[in-house]
Amino acid sequence: MTDGEAQLIEAARERLGPRAVVTDPHEIEPWVTDWRGRVHGAAPALLAPGSTEEVAEIVRLAAEHRVPLVPQGGNTGMAAGATPPADGSALLLSMRRMNRVRSLSADSRLAVAEAGVILATLHEAAHEIGMRFPLTLGARGSCTIGGLTSTNAGGTQVLKFGTMRSLVAGVEAVLPDGSVHNGLSGLKKDNRGYSLDQLLIGAEGTLGVITAVALRLVPAVAARAVAWAGVDSPERALDLLRFLETRTSAVEGFELVPEDSLQLVLKHVPDTRPPLGAEYDWHVLIEATTSDSQHDVGAELEELLGAALDQKIIEDAVLAANESQAEALWKLRDTISEAERAEGQTLAHDISVPVAQMPRFILDASAEVERRFPGVIASGFGHLGDGNIHFHVRAAGHAAPDWYEREGEDITRFVDDLVTAAGGSISAEHGIGQLKRAEFARLAPPGRIHALRAIKHALDPLGIMNPGKLVP
Amino acid sequence: MTDGEAQLIEAARERLGPRAVVTDPHEIEPWVTDWRGRVHGAAPALLAPGSTEEVAEIVRLAAEHRVPLVPQGGNTGMAAGATPPADGSALLLSMRRMNRVRSLSADSRLAVAEAGVILATLHEAAHEIGMRFPLTLGARGSCTIGGLTSTNAGGTQVLKFGTMRSLVAGVEAVLPDGSVHNGLSGLKKDNRGYSLDQLLIGAEGTLGVITAVALRLVPAVAARAVAWAGVDSPERALDLLRFLETRTSAVEGFELVPEDSLQLVLKHVPDTRPPLGAEYDWHVLIEATTSDSQHDVGAELEELLGAALDQKIIEDAVLAANESQAEALWKLRDTISEAERAEGQTLAHDISVPVAQMPRFILDASAEVERRFPGVIASGFGHLGDGNIHFHVRAAGHAAPDWYEREGEDITRFVDDLVTAAGGSISAEHGIGQLKRAEFARLAPPGRIHALRAIKHALDPLGIMNPGKLVP
Repeated sequence: MTDGEAQLIEAARERLGPRAVVTDPHEIEPWVTDWRGRVHGAAPALLAPGSTEEVAEIVRLAAEHRVPLVPQGGNTGMAAGATPPADGSALLLSMRRMNRVRSLSADSRLAVAEAGVILATLHEAAHEIGMRFPLTLGARGSCTIGGLTSTNAGGTQVLKFGTMRSLVAGVEAVLPDGSVHNGLSGLKKDNRGYSLDQLLIGAEGTLGVITAVALRLVPAVAARAVAWAGVDSPERALDLLRFLETRTSAVEGFELVPEDSLQLVLKHVPDTRPPLGAEYDWHVLIEATTSDSQHDVGAELEELLGAALDQKIIEDAVLAANESQAEALWKLRDTISEAERAEGQTLAHDISVPVAQMPRFILDASAEVERRFPGVIASGFGHLGDGNIHFHVRAAGHAAPDWYEREGEDITRFVDDLVTAAGGSISAEHGIGQLKRAEFARLAPPGRIHALRAIKHALDPLGIMNPGKLVP
Repeated sequence: MTDGEAQLIEAARERLGPRAVVTDPHEIEPWVTDWRGRVHGAAPALLAPGSTEEVAEIVRLAAEHRVPLVPQGGNTGMAAGATPPADGSALLLSMRRMNRVRSLSADSRLAVAEAGVILATLHEAAHEIGMRFPLTLGARGSCTIGGLTSTNAGGTQVLKFGTMRSLVAGVEAVLPDGSVHNGLSGLKKDNRGYSLDQLLIGAEGTLGVITAVALRLVPAVAARAVAWAGVDSPERALDLLRFLETRTSAVEGFELVPEDSLQLVLKHVPDTRPPLGAEYDWHVLIEATTSDSQHDVGAELEELLGAALDQKIIEDAVLAANESQAEALWKLRDTISEAERAEGQTLAHDISVPVAQMPRFILDASAEVERRFPGVIASGFGHLGDGNIHFHVRAAGHAAPDWYEREGEDITRFVDDLVTAAGGSISAEHGIGQLKRAEFARLAPPGRIHALRAIKHALDPLGIMNPGKLVP
């Protein structure tokens, strides 16, 4: 522990009380390793403020003592953006005690939630007033509003409602100088200079600590319809999406699944069975919803899929007859990563390219990776409608246990080069954090790196906000 | 002309050719005064690049010779943000030669337009492929995409589609160091660090020169319905909006008009007549649209207004029976400013408060202004659903010709104080430019001013991008 850290801990204990300062290593331990268990950090203390004013006080003390802070929500990030450095040179700033939903209104369609509110809690709170917060993802039971905002999280409903960037109506944050930025008033129009709200969204805690967020709500779902379709190719899957989009605005989930991934799920995941009567090279999971109780979204989707079948866009389709069938179809999609892990080693890449180019990219990139690294199996699945797929490369059956360590970096660089050549992003939704910083530095235009560094240094000249993350 | 300016003009002529450099004072003259004729500037030359590379070259030369540039589109701004300083110490950078729509796709629902494309031109181009760019405003025949983006413009359809910030899918810009930021790929998900796109939107050309913009398109309008309703109060007008919003998603325009404004229009504007059979204290203009040709939006709106009448939310309503009646109703709204000018001197304030508080604010603020400045008439009209009204204060009939000069500043400060106390914005859609800089400096929290200055200095350390605008 550095002298500065000791002084900061002492001062924080004195000003904020013992509750706000945790130094017991056993209590800290679960929060210093990233969710995927890949990056191990250390921190001599975890600070847990209970209010915006307490966060501001801690940030001012951190600046005074030159001690970096690592803001953390549910610790469910995919790029180790909330994991402290291994040398213990920073303190954890846990937002979990700031867990109040401050307000919620069906009339103004807004909620104000503190940074530590868990996504599932917000879902329930919105549901209770007949509304819905329309962003969801696998970690919904652990991830927090502050983390979701700081990473501009996406998920499976982005097609219709966008990422956090579209759903955030305003941000309250403590800036690195200890001042409080209050953007929570929920103004729909406000042109008073640069948008600090938008700058803080996706900044991974490097420009300040988000303490609360105003979020847009939408009417609750009155009915949903879930269907599965077999198609010949990713191109046909995209044709189906275009076909549906020009005829209805109800589609809010559109997930691409290769046959190969489906087979792994059927092999490894209990209580799963083939959704269609025959095998197809590619599959699509479609979810359509409506907030209008008069709108028979199931009948609409069935009719549209029938027309798509007639026009030979799809080969076959099935509509879930009830909620349990709908859940069973989603399970086939949601357990792909789990099935891959059961099968062997997997390298995941969270990438995006322009939607129109995605079908071609999936086929070409898979073929190029498999040619360059003989024996591996490459495939893409996920959010086709967002141009965002999880491009996974699996080890051959006979791969050595250290395949990941030996070949992983080369494969990732190869994939990232292909993505960059296609005008895409090497981080579609997971952010940069620690894990993608080197690749970001290698592939981003120098002007962009220069601008990011300049902004970081301008707002955080002492470098106390989440050092070693995002900015190369 | 400074030595630096002379050198920059010479170098620009040499490298870019004579077409890119205008020094004839007669050609420059229309562009050095703001649209409302309130701020008069001067510039020894107007540079008119024809490509992004030419803009980058000019910016590099400007940095080399330390000569500030004032980017300008259609010169229709309301805050003199594109008017050069009066001492001639900066050159105009006109984007009007960059006027190509680079691409347009109904499939991907995207257009890429250069900064100098006029809004009406983009509307037509989108219409030709069966799509629509859903932002519009009075200056549509002159204003440009670059200016609209740089000021985060709003307009009358924000209720449904948002401001430019929601409609911009990506920005291409030349940063102050001459590097080109290319955000045009139209990725729906991209989490590679701070969003420079979002930082440039609304930055009024102070952080770089926007050269092209990727814009979201929506399906073309298949039918629209326009109605006029009389209500007792702004609160009832908001009740009507809530009533409609929970029953349909078709409402895209919802404009509040006080009786007083309507009477001025009927008095001063030819070919206008009362929309309803009796007089009401407040009025609402409603526009509903659909892109679905099966959807009878007129019948839907008529039925909903009938129900609102039964529930005593509104006092009376009329639905336009055809396009010319619809135009006649819109004319009553669109000519309010013109009618006010005909009546006498008017002070305009483009302000916003949270939507739920707007009805109360209009009544209270009007009463307070009229009490504090005896003889004036204050009223608010406009985008109630966005929480954004034009709060206008008119001189009493007997006011001296120098009323505006004598009392204007005091009244504006009084109004801005009321807005700030209500948690609102003194610039809802017009930006800060030159005209609102002093008030912004007076009323913004010090931490915010500090952050804006730090960002400005970080990205434009030489101060060559639109100096004297936006940043206090």
